Amino acid sequence: MRMAELSRSTGVPVATVKYYLREGLLPRGEVTTSPNQVAYGPEHVRRIALVRSLVEVGGLSIASVRAVLAAVDDPAVSLHDTLGLTMDAASTGDAATVDDPAHAEAARRIDELIAERGWRLSEDPGARRVAVDVLATMHQITGDRLAGLASVYAEAAERVAEADLDTISALADPEERVETALVGTVLGERLLAALRRLAQEHVSATRFREQP
Amino acid sequence: MRMAELSRSTGVPVATVKYYLREGLLPRGEVTTSPNQVAYGPEHVRRIALVRSLVEVGGLSIASVRAVLAAVDDPAVSLHDTLGLTMDAASTGDAATVDDPAHAEAARRIDELIAERGWRLSEDPGARRVAVDVLATMHQITGDRLAGLASVYAEAAERVAEADLDTISALADPEERVETALVGTVLGERLLAALRRLAQEHVSATRFREQP
Repeated sequence: MRMAELSRSTGVPVATVKYYLREGLLPRGEVTTSPNQVAYGPEHVRRIALVRSLVEVGGLSIASVRAVLAAVDDPAVSLHDTLGLTMDAASTGDAATVDDPAHAEAARRIDELIAERGWRLSEDPGARRVAVDVLATMHQITGDRLAGLASVYAEAAERVAEADLDTISALADPEERVETALVGTVLGERLLAALRRLAQEHVSATRFREQP
Repeated sequence: MRMAELSRSTGVPVATVKYYLREGLLPRGEVTTSPNQVAYGPEHVRRIALVRSLVEVGGLSIASVRAVLAAVDDPAVSLHDTLGLTMDAASTGDAATVDDPAHAEAARRIDELIAERGWRLSEDPGARRVAVDVLATMHQITGDRLAGLASVYAEAAERVAEADLDTISALADPEERVETALVGTVLGERLLAALRRLAQEHVSATRFREQP
């Protein structure tokens, strides 16, 4: 197919497709027999869909997109490392390491949870810093009132993560795997949060509708 | 205690305490025997903590804070209605009702989930619109690849919501209940998301470390 058709079938404007080509995010099309004509195939459609998700859903910079694509295309890079690279780049609201008693106590609690569940993790993942920071803030505001919840959340999170990775395992195409993992993680957070609010409304109605 | 001490013990600047008083978010202190002196008590400390959480964690407008406080102080308003009022005001990223086939299909799926779990909800809650919108976007990007996850998320969300409301039920003070529900919901979303990312890393390592 030609550039105009590639643009139509992906819903991405021609100018953006040309930008992706210039930035090396999309392989050049094949030069055909007629001069000044280049042919694009289904691999270009798939690649554009992936780039678009990385940028629009994951909020990745062009440099991060390039790194993820290099990992996708390198057979020596494991799927685990490719997914890790993608999720680190798509991390929203990263937290710095804070050195105060509230954070130290929260870090102890999070590491205890990680050990309880037997999670084997890389050195200091960004999501651990976020969890520590959120737990420390919760404690500063509400004291011990919410302390019992973290282990329930960790168990629910593991159940959800198993289902997430079941979904990825069932896919064969490496680009679809990365795209699905990214979209599932980023949009899945919002879906899970919305469903939790609905479930809270239901449970609250059952318990507190009559109670002042 | 006097104004300066109230400010110290809550960590809220005197100017902010005066602003809360002017806006009617904090009851006046008791006039003491010496002129120009007003005494504040523990109820002022608690109320300032609640107002601060509503504004800083929940992002509520002053008008919404006033409505939540009126509900907290009115014995005729049930805890369920007070919590509902608070959560609606703290809703982040509300979604409009969109009328296209993707949203219609997503709405059908969300209502099916709600029925499956037996959730009894109010008419068109904001969180339902968010769930529908997220599910429609997921489908537009990844087709049916993530379709199986929503029921797992709903089950996990219910488990988390039960624990959330267990925590609220165990508290006696109405102000503490509202504050804890708010902080637990808003910060809890971030904690749950961070723990899910950690669990994903663990599950991914177990399955895909060696796999290209």
